[in-house]
Amino acid sequence: MPEPMTDGLWYTEVLDGKSSFGLRVTDVLHHERSDFQTIEVLDTPMLGRVLALDGILQTSERDEHWYHEMIVHPALCAAPSIERVLVIGGGDGGTAREVLRHPGVKRCVMVEIDRAVVEACRAHLPAIGGGVWDDPRLDLRFEDGVKMVAETDERFDVVVLDGSDPIGPSEGLFGRSFYEGVRRVVGDHGVFALQSESPTVYEDVFFDIQAALRDVFGASHPYFGSVYLYAAGMWTWTFASATADPLDVKAERVEAIAEGCRYYDGDIHRAAFVPPAFIRRRLEG
Amino acid sequence: MPEPMTDGLWYTEVLDGKSSFGLRVTDVLHHERSDFQTIEVLDTPMLGRVLALDGILQTSERDEHWYHEMIVHPALCAAPSIERVLVIGGGDGGTAREVLRHPGVKRCVMVEIDRAVVEACRAHLPAIGGGVWDDPRLDLRFEDGVKMVAETDERFDVVVLDGSDPIGPSEGLFGRSFYEGVRRVVGDHGVFALQSESPTVYEDVFFDIQAALRDVFGASHPYFGSVYLYAAGMWTWTFASATADPLDVKAERVEAIAEGCRYYDGDIHRAAFVPPAFIRRRLEG
Repeated sequence: MPEPMTDGLWYTEVLDGKSSFGLRVTDVLHHERSDFQTIEVLDTPMLGRVLALDGILQTSERDEHWYHEMIVHPALCAAPSIERVLVIGGGDGGTAREVLRHPGVKRCVMVEIDRAVVEACRAHLPAIGGGVWDDPRLDLRFEDGVKMVAETDERFDVVVLDGSDPIGPSEGLFGRSFYEGVRRVVGDHGVFALQSESPTVYEDVFFDIQAALRDVFGASHPYFGSVYLYAAGMWTWTFASATADPLDVKAERVEAIAEGCRYYDGDIHRAAFVPPAFIRRRLEG
Repeated sequence: MPEPMTDGLWYTEVLDGKSSFGLRVTDVLHHERSDFQTIEVLDTPMLGRVLALDGILQTSERDEHWYHEMIVHPALCAAPSIERVLVIGGGDGGTAREVLRHPGVKRCVMVEIDRAVVEACRAHLPAIGGGVWDDPRLDLRFEDGVKMVAETDERFDVVVLDGSDPIGPSEGLFGRSFYEGVRRVVGDHGVFALQSESPTVYEDVFFDIQAALRDVFGASHPYFGSVYLYAAGMWTWTFASATADPLDVKAERVEAIAEGCRYYDGDIHRAAFVPPAFIRRRLEG
């Protein structure tokens, strides 16, 4: 029998009113209501320090690699060019950190709506951003990613959308008009990579994202993994491009980042794009 | 903001005192203390009906396919022969059901220690066992799998261990002496497939299982997926055999079961055997 250790401080996220994931908490390092959301950093025995936004667990020291490597490297190892990269969201710095491990990246613009998230993460989750904040290739801007993408004249080889769930400040990042802006920004050969939710917890959201990307790019390539913190079994990201092939893996790019990877490698890249039968059938329509 | 719907009845499993997974419960269909464990069947809005043993969530109507297809089909589609199959545990019937979907299986012996689990599942989770209880190829025995494997003179082409976590009545199913019995029962060409826990929550258990299987069989081939109910991100199973190749997928066997599969297919089979980098490195030692 498991010991009934349920005493003391816990942080519990409730998914859709139907399931919950909780972490024992040994310390609340940060608690703030910013202009956009409630920001909390907690210390936990299970996953180390953890970031939560508006009650939703976002990233943890212990499993952030599973997420950040998978949102970045499939796009960065398969895109035709990777000199100019745009990261939208990703205030903890983990996504930009993985982008900038690629020596071929000359410039990474990171657009985060909430300066307070970056400040809380720099103060309390320094291991996630690592040296990214001092990298001269990083151009960090605090503005609305939806507005930026709609209005910019800049062009990027890869756009990575590291947003939270499609509620709260990230809502505008999910949907056709935003994707059309990204399509314009990456052109015919660029790549758009995004987290695309869990097909178990948010099945409709996952398939809606695929349908919208197919309308806008002509193709979407979901790929599969898992993130312990998200307590959803399977997690997905999606590679979208009008012309680029997600399985055109450039071995020299994989090699250049291999030593620092805990989850990703070239074989994981190819395996991740294999959909479970129920998803394959529904995507084939 | 998520709605704070935490009122009412919940079933919460606590992992190692450090994290928890909860399901909202609309009905408690069964609650019993058997000779071996506490057996509960609950109705939940998230996952349909759910079985719990000693406070640990075991299987659910909604996601049981992810688990049962993956514990059975990699072994049954790659083993040299599949006429005689032994299932140890698996009292809900889902594993034997998937085994018996293979037309090449002539006989499936299922050894479950706790008759009360089978009775509770037949009464309250009939969708999981399906028609398996009436299949003339099923030989259901209520006895201790550890003892049976140690003493039997029978030989099997495939042994599937569908046990719960290595505490409680399943404890003896994890470890070298049990594996040595299975090695004897399957011979040089047979295959042993088992659930091998999560490398996130129970990292040491996962690697201990691999080490013991390598000692006994000379090789172990873990494979990877996810089970929403287990709230552990990644879940693993392992294929062990002295000589059989887990990637020698027999296309005609995959084809024969394809229509009833919701998760598994030949591409998933091959992709599942790709380990994340941190596991590959540690297994390569």
